[in-house]
Amino acid sequence: MKKMNVVQNVKGTQDYLPNAEMVRKKITKILEETFVQYGCKPLETPILNYTELLASKYGGGAEILEEMYTLSDRGERDLALRYDLTIPFAKVVAMNPTIRMPFKRYEIGKVFRDGPIKAGRFREFTQCDVDIVGVESQIAEAELMNMALDAFKKLELNVVIQYNNRKLLTGMLEFFGTDNKLINKVVLILDKIEKAGLEAVLAELTELGLHASTIRLIEQFLIDRNNKKYSYFEHAAKKNILVKEGIEELKELEMYLEYLDLSGQCVFNPFLARGLEIYTGTIYEIFLVDLSIKSSIGSGGRYDNAIGGLIGSNERISTVGISFGLDVIYSAITASNNFITKSSHVDFYIIPLNTMKESLLLARYLRNKGYNVELELGSKKIGKALDKANKEKIRTVVIIGEDEVKNNQYKMKDMGSGEERYEDFVFKK
Amino acid sequence: MKKMNVVQNVKGTQDYLPNAEMVRKKITKILEETFVQYGCKPLETPILNYTELLASKYGGGAEILEEMYTLSDRGERDLALRYDLTIPFAKVVAMNPTIRMPFKRYEIGKVFRDGPIKAGRFREFTQCDVDIVGVESQIAEAELMNMALDAFKKLELNVVIQYNNRKLLTGMLEFFGTDNKLINKVVLILDKIEKAGLEAVLAELTELGLHASTIRLIEQFLIDRNNKKYSYFEHAAKKNILVKEGIEELKELEMYLEYLDLSGQCVFNPFLARGLEIYTGTIYEIFLVDLSIKSSIGSGGRYDNAIGGLIGSNERISTVGISFGLDVIYSAITASNNFITKSSHVDFYIIPLNTMKESLLLARYLRNKGYNVELELGSKKIGKALDKANKEKIRTVVIIGEDEVKNNQYKMKDMGSGEERYEDFVFKK
Repeated sequence: MKKMNVVQNVKGTQDYLPNAEMVRKKITKILEETFVQYGCKPLETPILNYTELLASKYGGGAEILEEMYTLSDRGERDLALRYDLTIPFAKVVAMNPTIRMPFKRYEIGKVFRDGPIKAGRFREFTQCDVDIVGVESQIAEAELMNMALDAFKKLELNVVIQYNNRKLLTGMLEFFGTDNKLINKVVLILDKIEKAGLEAVLAELTELGLHASTIRLIEQFLIDRNNKKYSYFEHAAKKNILVKEGIEELKELEMYLEYLDLSGQCVFNPFLARGLEIYTGTIYEIFLVDLSIKSSIGSGGRYDNAIGGLIGSNERISTVGISFGLDVIYSAITASNNFITKSSHVDFYIIPLNTMKESLLLARYLRNKGYNVELELGSKKIGKALDKANKEKIRTVVIIGEDEVKNNQYKMKDMGSGEERYEDFVFKK
Repeated sequence: MKKMNVVQNVKGTQDYLPNAEMVRKKITKILEETFVQYGCKPLETPILNYTELLASKYGGGAEILEEMYTLSDRGERDLALRYDLTIPFAKVVAMNPTIRMPFKRYEIGKVFRDGPIKAGRFREFTQCDVDIVGVESQIAEAELMNMALDAFKKLELNVVIQYNNRKLLTGMLEFFGTDNKLINKVVLILDKIEKAGLEAVLAELTELGLHASTIRLIEQFLIDRNNKKYSYFEHAAKKNILVKEGIEELKELEMYLEYLDLSGQCVFNPFLARGLEIYTGTIYEIFLVDLSIKSSIGSGGRYDNAIGGLIGSNERISTVGISFGLDVIYSAITASNNFITKSSHVDFYIIPLNTMKESLLLARYLRNKGYNVELELGSKKIGKALDKANKEKIRTVVIIGEDEVKNNQYKMKDMGSGEERYEDFVFKK
């Protein structure tokens, strides 16, 4: 019985078998090609990091730190597995002061979180991130939002981007009289409004110890939340500098989005909060238009304090980022009848019938021409081999029997139409 | 001072900055395309595994197990980071009994070994593996060797494959009177002959407690090692079944290699041992012809006992594999004046001079046509921007100033020839 237990996957992890992995590879290929089209460069950072780095206050915040896997090496160093690609990126910028700015990088890699397992959430998963450091203006956000919309268009997924500005949200909470120390916690609570509902959010705010007057103002803000536009904030903007700056940044961002005719796919949502504490300006989340998946399938924002904080200079270093979740995009792709799921990698499937020499030579000939060729290496009978071709949706099968070899020919069969024809061996045997 | 320590890499790990990572990506792309050309399918397995699985006796052997990173999760499970991609592959086959055979998979992924750090060796590194399960004949080995030679041709690296058969080596050691329990240890010692020399190897064999007569026979075998061909083994083959089978398998393999005109690139080496204990038949290592790197840049072999052993059935399940080391291939590529290192990803670099709107629109237009476009997001002056174009070897720069916009034009500059010309904005602004 013990043997049975050895051969299993760790809770929260999974294998991606070829059918799934082929789709995942196509998704990351499209993302990567889009990133490169936008002038982004690849970076690869280690999965193993010093715990002290990942636990820095510019990291993922208390909730994520609880989920961090820690270990030590033979030299007794305190190590941890990265839980995102942002802190490793900030580390690289901090370690390489001569990097030419602006620096746009992408990284696609595994991250680890020892958290609760829900549908579609794993403890080991892949993130696809793009970040830009060194651009103060909202053109950086606009470029990333444009890039995301381009990528999802290529993936044939219909999406909308909701955006907000942390300064606006923070400023409004200040304006309502929220204790400064509690603002990040309040933001995290407001983040749950769509899922938990108004009552639950207000209850949590009360529990946090906010003044009744503050809660009343936040409640009014939440109730009024449909179709809120900037005129609503004008009064507060006169009293609070963050509200003023937030509105200005939002207007600048919208100018760029209008240039690019993207306003129709981008919607302002003044309650969008994003969980992570590190954000300092624009934030956004990307949703499927049909909401067949409720959670966001990508998200990002500006975090100008992290790199300076890590370096220890506390300098403000303009940084914006976006992250795409491979697993959730995979779910969206496979739930729809998406083009990506419909093709086989194999151009020709060669079935040798006691003709391995000729089959090897034909395989070499076709591969040299750039085709993908599956040569049957087992000693499958013709019926079983055709069965495999059907199941794997391989279009063209090549059959080489001893009679064919005598005639210096091979047989091509189109699995769609059933049509067969003979071809001559034209290459040196 | 403490701040300085937070921002550093763990000993034995490193970041791959864009210039290096672009080359690495091109290498893995060529490898992956070649794997797919040979009908291999992608598989992705978790990095986190149960310690018990990785420590199985069908795993990497005692030396590797000492280097295994272990940790536990919040559920107190004993976990370890994978040290290779072979055991995870065997696990997948064992867990999925309905997989269609033969099953050919590739996986490119991170592995971890907490071992000594030498030049070019890291504790976190990438392996690129192909394995085939379900093929008893030597056609499986021939296909992988052919594939490897194809891949290195595309990478413009001149290589030679040395091959041997574990049965032959084991059988000869039996024939020389080596105690069966010591054979794996002797194989590991013989593996060092090229680096350590004859004296050191003989000393280690004596220390191991081999009979003087056995050592004398092994010494004679090693001294005779140049140009040894099968006639040398005829006598032993009559007395020892492993020697006989080993020779038969080698001859079958060579038949396939001759079919494919590969004999010139493949050399029999009767002392090739390969460190890992799991191999049961053909083994091979790939070297640069110029030996500018002394260690192998790829290697593989047959390991028919691992999957059956993991399942617990102890059934012999035909399995062959090959592994490419990304770091060592990267070293070979960058040391030579290889084509891969010579190109920029960027087709056009657009420099806006107070013309962000028009620049955004031109970037969109060119990206929609499939070009890779770097849009300067910082407010670089023209001189600094051209400097960057030169340093990053970008061929074509687009300059959009206010005068150009007035004339409904933009300026293209070829950084090679210095030539400039004006183009009209042909798209909707």
